[in-house]
Amino acid sequence: MAHALGLGRRGMGQCWPNPAVGCVIVRDGRVVGRGWTQPGGRPHAETVALEQAGEAARGATAYVTLEPCAHHGKTPPCCEALVAAGIARVVAPIADSDPRVDGQGFDYLRKNGVDVTTGIGAEQALLDHAGFFLRLSQGRPWVTLKLAMTLDGRIATATGESQWITGPAARRAVHGLRATHDAVMVGAGTARADDPQLTVRGFGDRQQPVRIVVSRLIDVPLMSYLAQSARDVPLWFCHGPEARSELRSAWDGIGARLLSCQISGGRIDPHAMLRTLGAEGLTRVFCEGGGQLAGSLLMHDLVDELHVFSAGMALGAEGHPGIGALGVARLDEAPRFQLVDVMSEGADIHHVWRRRLDG
Amino acid sequence: MAHALGLGRRGMGQCWPNPAVGCVIVRDGRVVGRGWTQPGGRPHAETVALEQAGEAARGATAYVTLEPCAHHGKTPPCCEALVAAGIARVVAPIADSDPRVDGQGFDYLRKNGVDVTTGIGAEQALLDHAGFFLRLSQGRPWVTLKLAMTLDGRIATATGESQWITGPAARRAVHGLRATHDAVMVGAGTARADDPQLTVRGFGDRQQPVRIVVSRLIDVPLMSYLAQSARDVPLWFCHGPEARSELRSAWDGIGARLLSCQISGGRIDPHAMLRTLGAEGLTRVFCEGGGQLAGSLLMHDLVDELHVFSAGMALGAEGHPGIGALGVARLDEAPRFQLVDVMSEGADIHHVWRRRLDG
Repeated sequence: MAHALGLGRRGMGQCWPNPAVGCVIVRDGRVVGRGWTQPGGRPHAETVALEQAGEAARGATAYVTLEPCAHHGKTPPCCEALVAAGIARVVAPIADSDPRVDGQGFDYLRKNGVDVTTGIGAEQALLDHAGFFLRLSQGRPWVTLKLAMTLDGRIATATGESQWITGPAARRAVHGLRATHDAVMVGAGTARADDPQLTVRGFGDRQQPVRIVVSRLIDVPLMSYLAQSARDVPLWFCHGPEARSELRSAWDGIGARLLSCQISGGRIDPHAMLRTLGAEGLTRVFCEGGGQLAGSLLMHDLVDELHVFSAGMALGAEGHPGIGALGVARLDEAPRFQLVDVMSEGADIHHVWRRRLDG
Repeated sequence: MAHALGLGRRGMGQCWPNPAVGCVIVRDGRVVGRGWTQPGGRPHAETVALEQAGEAARGATAYVTLEPCAHHGKTPPCCEALVAAGIARVVAPIADSDPRVDGQGFDYLRKNGVDVTTGIGAEQALLDHAGFFLRLSQGRPWVTLKLAMTLDGRIATATGESQWITGPAARRAVHGLRATHDAVMVGAGTARADDPQLTVRGFGDRQQPVRIVVSRLIDVPLMSYLAQSARDVPLWFCHGPEARSELRSAWDGIGARLLSCQISGGRIDPHAMLRTLGAEGLTRVFCEGGGQLAGSLLMHDLVDELHVFSAGMALGAEGHPGIGALGVARLDEAPRFQLVDVMSEGADIHHVWRRRLDG
């Protein structure tokens, strides 16, 4: 199952709105087929693995990281394919809460004489498919927030200098994180200050994540790298309804997608924005700041995982804060996270925190 | 040598202004004596180990973490004692740069037929004795700065609530760090806000570090815990020359020590202050903030080691910063540190950084 989970994660960021599933087929102690959800979401992991296994699938065990689908979509359901191939046993950690599946895959398998085991690897599977499930249950994608800061939590000097605070190893880790997300998101301030590419580099030829800029007034120069590359790599704007129509047309003309989002308190409402992105099919969004967008997501309890890269450098109180205003008066109102991992990344440290479930 | 270095560190914070030396005497592959500099600085490590070894010292090897002393002080020099006991070989990583020793210990040993080996464990010995050497060369103690912050570098909410940001494991680690320093130092703001004890608790009965409050005007309530305990645990004030004489007398009357320090730019000059503390014999000072004092030490490049405890919590831009103003406009002006260690400490992380020597 660990092997199947590892294979499944290869599809992360590549197959939205579908879940990134892995499948390993084992016969007589030998792996006869391996597969994962392919870019774009099809073929499914089971299809790939069954094709590899061929006749060897007869009487074999299939380890799948999510309940096999039971609905007729663009392809016939996987549970029918597993039965047709003669699979004797299916081991899957968890059911698929998609209302079109929701236990019907397991039911179909059992009715057709396939032995079904669940529960093994469930914790990891829930985490790997968390974005897919969040979109089903709350209509929004999983949000990972990245903060690359000095050890006192600053992302730029008072004069705005920010490149580079963290080193090459940390930046490479960031590209790896971008690669496992459906989209990379920044606020307009960061888009203006850094003129970023927001692409995955150094990880081979792959489908690039969607690039999202959150900007109420679409306040980003048309000379920016983002504008110039909008036809090559998807670029979406989450803007307010009051954004000027000339600007909308201009960006639309150079290939960007414009998503009008609800405003609350003079700012784009982050709940509404994420629901809009969920409706567009995104299951995992990687937010790279700046401070105001990070603060807005944290304040609304919309950050599921935090990746902090801390550099051995201090900028002091005048530096730009990595997390903007949160409106927290008392410690017990502060957003809290649980430590997942901490490691060194070149000269910097990388600490990972996840939403606390205990309060 | 590793064993001797470990023994030496037991004396840290207990034997200033003397160095915390360790000594292991080995004869025929068996440890026959162990010692470290005792509280108050005497007896020296060699004396303790030789006494333990007794007759077994004859023909043995002594591993000492610093060149044995050569000067007649309150006790006869250790190099004479080693020769008198019949030690055949001395292994010591480094020379003692104290002008009263400075190679004379090694010379005396060699002249008296003792084989001397140096260099082994030199890096660790230089680090362990760094405070002792800094005081000799620059007249100031080694400065360790502790920062216990949220992951965005805040030490209190906008309303001043700060207890507790980090958890019990981190706080225990802080007590352990206090125990290895000659003094614990805070700014007046922290002394007022937290009413701290600044003592080492949970590490057995031991000599407490000196408690130092940096306060230009001695602006700390006479009802504070620090005031009430000034007769039990040393309390020193680093104040400006303009502190009111009534206040000086009042604190003097309850047992505090008052050290008048030079002012520059309206604040206590941190260079002058540390030289004053060096002149008082301190070799290792542990600074626990607040933000202004931390900023002042960092700005003047006076922080040798940084211990950051980061909690899984964010307070946002309105929170009090752990490091105050630094006056850094460009990234290349920022104080930089090299990663030494990173670990989890209960629910928090603990990262250790040391002054960069490469620029």
